[in-house]
Amino acid sequence: MTISYSLKVSEARLGGFPKLLLRWKASIYKLLYKEMAIFVSLYSALSGVYRFALTEEQKRTFEKITLYCHQYSDLIPVSFVLGFYVSIIYTRWWNQYMNLPWPDRVSALIGCAVHGRDERGRLIRRTMVRYLNLSSVLILRSVSTVVYKRFPTMNHVVDAGFMSVAELKEYENVDSHHSKFWVPLNWFCNLATVARQEGRIRDDFTFQALIEEENKMRHCLGMLYSYDWISVPLVYTQVVTVAVYTFFLSCLMGRQYLDPSQGYESHEVDLYIPAFTILQMFFYMGWLKVAEQLINPFGQDDDDFEGNWCIDRNLQISYLAVDDMYLCHPPLEKDIYWN
Amino acid sequence: MTISYSLKVSEARLGGFPKLLLRWKASIYKLLYKEMAIFVSLYSALSGVYRFALTEEQKRTFEKITLYCHQYSDLIPVSFVLGFYVSIIYTRWWNQYMNLPWPDRVSALIGCAVHGRDERGRLIRRTMVRYLNLSSVLILRSVSTVVYKRFPTMNHVVDAGFMSVAELKEYENVDSHHSKFWVPLNWFCNLATVARQEGRIRDDFTFQALIEEENKMRHCLGMLYSYDWISVPLVYTQVVTVAVYTFFLSCLMGRQYLDPSQGYESHEVDLYIPAFTILQMFFYMGWLKVAEQLINPFGQDDDDFEGNWCIDRNLQISYLAVDDMYLCHPPLEKDIYWN
Amino acid sequence: MTISYSLKVSEARLGGFPKLLLRWKASIYKLLYKEMAIFVSLYSALSGVYRFALTEEQKRTFEKITLYCHQYSDLIPVSFVLGFYVSIIYTRWWNQYMNLPWPDRVSALIGCAVHGRDERGRLIRRTMVRYLNLSSVLILRSVSTVVYKRFPTMNHVVDAGFMSVAELKEYENVDSHHSKFWVPLNWFCNLATVARQEGRIRDDFTFQALIEEENKMRHCLGMLYSYDWISVPLVYTQVVTVAVYTFFLSCLMGRQYLDPSQGYESHEVDLYIPAFTILQMFFYMGWLKVAEQLINPFGQDDDDFEGNWCIDRNLQISYLAVDDMYLCHPPLEKDIYWN
Amino acid sequence: MTISYSLKVSEARLGGFPKLLLRWKASIYKLLYKEMAIFVSLYSALSGVYRFALTEEQKRTFEKITLYCHQYSDLIPVSFVLGFYVSIIYTRWWNQYMNLPWPDRVSALIGCAVHGRDERGRLIRRTMVRYLNLSSVLILRSVSTVVYKRFPTMNHVVDAGFMSVAELKEYENVDSHHSKFWVPLNWFCNLATVARQEGRIRDDFTFQALIEEENKMRHCLGMLYSYDWISVPLVYTQVVTVAVYTFFLSCLMGRQYLDPSQGYESHEVDLYIPAFTILQMFFYMGWLKVAEQLINPFGQDDDDFEGNWCIDRNLQISYLAVDDMYLCHPPLEKDIYWN
Amino acid sequence: MTISYSLKVSEARLGGFPKLLLRWKASIYKLLYKEMAIFVSLYSALSGVYRFALTEEQKRTFEKITLYCHQYSDLIPVSFVLGFYVSIIYTRWWNQYMNLPWPDRVSALIGCAVHGRDERGRLIRRTMVRYLNLSSVLILRSVSTVVYKRFPTMNHVVDAGFMSVAELKEYENVDSHHSKFWVPLNWFCNLATVARQEGRIRDDFTFQALIEEENKMRHCLGMLYSYDWISVPLVYTQVVTVAVYTFFLSCLMGRQYLDPSQGYESHEVDLYIPAFTILQMFFYMGWLKVAEQLINPFGQDDDDFEGNWCIDRNLQISYLAVDDMYLCHPPLEKDIYWN
Repeated sequence: MTISYSLKVSEARLGGFPKLLLRWKASIYKLLYKEMAIFVSLYSALSGVYRFALTEEQKRTFEKITLYCHQYSDLIPVSFVLGFYVSIIYTRWWNQYMNLPWPDRVSALIGCAVHGRDERGRLIRRTMVRYLNLSSVLILRSVSTVVYKRFPTMNHVVDAGFMSVAELKEYENVDSHHSKFWVPLNWFCNLATVARQEGRIRDDFTFQALIEEENKMRHCLGMLYSYDWISVPLVYTQVVTVAVYTFFLSCLMGRQYLDPSQGYESHEVDLYIPAFTILQMFFYMGWLKVAEQLINPFGQDDDDFEGNWCIDRNLQISYLAVDDMYLCHPPLEKDIYWN
Repeated sequence: MTISYSLKVSEARLGGFPKLLLRWKASIYKLLYKEMAIFVSLYSALSGVYRFALTEEQKRTFEKITLYCHQYSDLIPVSFVLGFYVSIIYTRWWNQYMNLPWPDRVSALIGCAVHGRDERGRLIRRTMVRYLNLSSVLILRSVSTVVYKRFPTMNHVVDAGFMSVAELKEYENVDSHHSKFWVPLNWFCNLATVARQEGRIRDDFTFQALIEEENKMRHCLGMLYSYDWISVPLVYTQVVTVAVYTFFLSCLMGRQYLDPSQGYESHEVDLYIPAFTILQMFFYMGWLKVAEQLINPFGQDDDDFEGNWCIDRNLQISYLAVDDMYLCHPPLEKDIYWN
Repeated sequence: MTISYSLKVSEARLGGFPKLLLRWKASIYKLLYKEMAIFVSLYSALSGVYRFALTEEQKRTFEKITLYCHQYSDLIPVSFVLGFYVSIIYTRWWNQYMNLPWPDRVSALIGCAVHGRDERGRLIRRTMVRYLNLSSVLILRSVSTVVYKRFPTMNHVVDAGFMSVAELKEYENVDSHHSKFWVPLNWFCNLATVARQEGRIRDDFTFQALIEEENKMRHCLGMLYSYDWISVPLVYTQVVTVAVYTFFLSCLMGRQYLDPSQGYESHEVDLYIPAFTILQMFFYMGWLKVAEQLINPFGQDDDDFEGNWCIDRNLQISYLAVDDMYLCHPPLEKDIYWN
Repeated sequence: MTISYSLKVSEARLGGFPKLLLRWKASIYKLLYKEMAIFVSLYSALSGVYRFALTEEQKRTFEKITLYCHQYSDLIPVSFVLGFYVSIIYTRWWNQYMNLPWPDRVSALIGCAVHGRDERGRLIRRTMVRYLNLSSVLILRSVSTVVYKRFPTMNHVVDAGFMSVAELKEYENVDSHHSKFWVPLNWFCNLATVARQEGRIRDDFTFQALIEEENKMRHCLGMLYSYDWISVPLVYTQVVTVAVYTFFLSCLMGRQYLDPSQGYESHEVDLYIPAFTILQMFFYMGWLKVAEQLINPFGQDDDDFEGNWCIDRNLQISYLAVDDMYLCHPPLEKDIYWN
Repeated sequence: MTISYSLKVSEARLGGFPKLLLRWKASIYKLLYKEMAIFVSLYSALSGVYRFALTEEQKRTFEKITLYCHQYSDLIPVSFVLGFYVSIIYTRWWNQYMNLPWPDRVSALIGCAVHGRDERGRLIRRTMVRYLNLSSVLILRSVSTVVYKRFPTMNHVVDAGFMSVAELKEYENVDSHHSKFWVPLNWFCNLATVARQEGRIRDDFTFQALIEEENKMRHCLGMLYSYDWISVPLVYTQVVTVAVYTFFLSCLMGRQYLDPSQGYESHEVDLYIPAFTILQMFFYMGWLKVAEQLINPFGQDDDDFEGNWCIDRNLQISYLAVDDMYLCHPPLEKDIYWN
């Protein structure tokens, strides 16, 4: 579930953002502690070898390699490529959120435009929103690992009440090896046509409005599918990864403690713990982890979108809107500013 | 309330922007003075220790640590990550403003499309806009701390005249544990359907236009909810905070005065007050404060959006539009350019 | 008035852009000459003091301060923060242009959809576009200093023919202390309803199209109001100003000529005129002036939008469209490619 | 075909992105191995010449040139221009994807709005979607090299069933030397008019909705044509290429091993393999290859969009929607939450 | 004409982009050779003076000035400001392309919605599209130098068949000193009203759709006018030009060969040709030329949009669509996948 911390930073004051550093869930620590452990272990091992295991001559070679690595650790503009790359990933991430399907609009419209208090009326309204929810489930199954875990087969979709057995049969009869998420949307259109012919939808205008709302949902679902299908080009991701891990490697050697008595520049102090190097790794690796977390927002990260929550919420809301609340509103009363 | 200073800078002239440095409200000084006080205190304390408390040998160690910190204070590209991060936060902030609900359009439409000068006509028109305003209040309560303070319970919403007791009861009867801000919007649709059936809305076309306007408002409210729910990923905020505070720490030691007689490069002058370091802190910390202030625009900062003002303005304007101004316009007169 | 120079650079050729450096109006020179004069004066004064007034020992201190300032003048990434800040300001500036109200579309529609060659027909059409122009005037008065100068009171608006006395009275009767720019827009809607009821607007569809066009204008006017009301957060502007003026100050001392005989690095030549420093000031200050000029595009800069010109043009065009050109078009003739 | 790796990075965890470095298809290695081979060969050759072939004096000259090149390799801000350039290319690339034509919406609409179960009804519906698919094929032929290979002549289009012989004849009769992709779209409009006149399309409203959907497709196809026609200005691409290859050349000499005994700074170690230089080349060249791969997304790269797949999918889906699924939906059943 | 090179880079492979360096048309060489010639001449002249004309003492001064210039050539962040500036210009350039008027949509609509095979029907349809094309010509004349050359007076517009003599007269009778490009668009609306009244346009809905399409075109034309009228603020362009030419000047002196025997750092080699400096000039000047070429896309650069081509194409296509192809489509045939 996405981690909401807006409330904690509703005011800019002393310690506003620093306070956020104390959280664990979805935090940089949780994402990075393994990498940092590896880095510190390797760094310590190398340092130990240098201090205790090497001969004087080997030490001189070690020092040269360290200086060489140190010098090259600044050559790759990690921050630059990370800045541009994370911007792209962030934009994609937010656009994916923007395309999550919400049936609120279309449900409200069905609830006030597909008429009939009789059973068939209810049936048509409920079936229409069910078709829309079914399409959402079909798409979310294909893009989200957690939704797929919940509905590993189409039978699970049937069992959860999104589809009847007859519908599954008809769905499977549609002869296409491409994604068939659009099939229930077309059923929706056809059912709306029937409702129009029966006079339950009273005018052509409302009919078109329903089709238009359905098309908006179709667009969102198509976009989710596209974002899953068309990743950021692999080369870009690889370039960024190469940059950060090259930096990682060059720091491992290049930031080693060197015997101050050798008088190497910038190696006057032996701090045992390379505090600033660790903070720097935190910074660059953390920035890369931002990208790693956002690149697939339908996975299992702490901050990923919860497909299953959406599915349940949408089904509940849409049934409420078209059935329980059908054409009902509270009694009209004069408000307190009436005169 | 947001601080408007457009008028002060309507012309680019000598001292245009510098003049703005003299303001206190919503200023960098107000946001930063505590942080700066802490920085200056710690800096002075360390400087005092170095100058008066340490032995010569301890001074040499102190100097080494200072040089080490000085050298590393440039390693983290604070400005880079701040630039990208603040861009994201700024865009979110403006988009949130763009999604504030304004009922002007829909009120104007109701005022000229839902007919009837009788009491029931007035009642329907006033109730329709009240439903919309009620939805706004429900969302703003959930995202804005100041609006929540004004309406801590639903009863306060009723007392303020946004909801009748019967409506509250029906609202609470809607069986969903998700946000129910959409319920009054669906009442709006249903009431519009009734008005259409009674012939008060005279054609299907206008009916659809009303639903469309209501849907635009629903979209805005949904977006406000989304911005509150989906924060900028915590990791990104943490990465930026780590970068700035690491810089803060490294400056604390790294920019210390060192005994010029030791001949360290760039430490030839003893200025007592590290003026440029303080300005630099001002700059980086201030940039971070921009983000801190904008990340939740519904809080209590000087520059935050005023939810309560919006709520009051909207209620007044919408009642005026649908009731007092219903179908009235000044008498038609020939304008002065008639011939 | 905005300065148009597109024609001068219609072709990329030798001296294309440099040619633009020779202009004065809206130029960097006009905006900066005062700041540059101050800088050069202070710089020369300091230089004079150093060369002629100081003792040798004071000179050594002066030199140390110079070196210290020189070193710190690079610490603040002025170009970085300016780049991001000016991008934001530029986007706001262009969006404000995009929201200037143009009544062309709605006038054309009124001209072909509100029928009647009789006097009442003319009256309705002219009044409808006058309402729209009146709304524009009301908003532009509140955001633009030059428009406000032209219409310091509502009586000036009446005198200029945008409003009748009766309208002003009714306008003032609307009981709201918020901006009332929307009142004439609601009159427009009500008048359109009357025209529909009289059959002058012949179908519901066209009626809605008129309301929709009016709403587009309402949106533009609301946006202009918003841009005036919600400035770029003051902190951001202050941060940028601090950065540039800190740089200004550090250059004042840090770029001083130092006695070459003291052998300070980078101070081998005595050029009397610090040409590159001046160019650098030109560059950074000029970039900041870009922001200063664009932050309020309704002021009195050479490059600001001309509200008064827009108001006059819109009134003329809209009367032409709905009245002189009502339902007229040249006689139909076969074109020269007829067969 | 685009390479999808979303699933592999659904969770941010240890080795998330590094794992992606092991792929070959669409990878940086596949794109770069030739360039790297050339670089390493030339580098080794130069190194061999220096070590074994030159006299002492020639070695001194070689060293000077190396130092000169080394110094200048940092002068061109390659990362900066690459960052901005790749942003532009990436945006173009995604916008091109966004404009791929999908007939889903219009097919669903045809399937529920163009009536008649008789043969002529089927014929009209199938022909309408075929016209749309034909337009797509005509555009994709002109922008995509792989689609052009599949349909080298218009006869291939006829053979593949997108066009009848009579249609080809009429198409060729349209007397224009400009792209004629819009001809089938106009046939679509004309056929829709016929269907309206026959009463198969039952109302004006639906007729307009069909035209609107057709226009959306027309817009997408026009955009694809535009992106192909209007490249990123050649100068920009050349500037970036000059920057990267200049860097390439300066590294070739500037990063050469130099005899450590000469005591040149940063040349203390002889590593034989210039590991960091190679990683740096990987980084810059790889970033450029991102642009090279995305600049024409309809080519034959591993990551390019598959025009042929789209064409086949669209034809199948659209026939299914308008014919097999015409007005059919599964029998209505009560869902499991009925009460 | 814009230079299309998409096909050449359809595949990312060895030498993909470098191949583009060999082109002349619209290339960096064509744009820059004059500037480069000036630079090289001045550079050589200065070098000649230094080598052969100066006394030893003068040489020392020359060397000091060179070192001073060299040092300051890095002070102005040319790449930074160029990056941001070119982004703005590029976005403007593409938006201008997006607003080129294409009458395809509205022609198709006229062709299937304005009925009558009689002469008057043809006349109305042809006149309607001619009005639209006339508006385009009027705008393109005012923004494009090449179109203006083709139509230096309104009589040329008449001669080319876009306007009849009677229309020109009526056009000139419209009493406004502002741009009158909108006049034919209003004629279009009025003519459509006539066609609706005659029943040639059969329903209100289609009538509105025509007006809407006309309004889209009006918007595009208005935007083209705006882009021409509102340039990027002159100050911004001047700032960028100052930055690049300052760099140019500082390189001229700062990158001079200095006698290696004087032992100045980085001046150990005498290469006669300052290859890297020239490449660097190529890079920065080329980047600026990108902006110079894109800032006015309606000029006479190799890469500018061809207004005249558009005008001709649009006229041809629109006559074809409304006249030759009026309500015609090929005979309906069963497609090859019929069963």
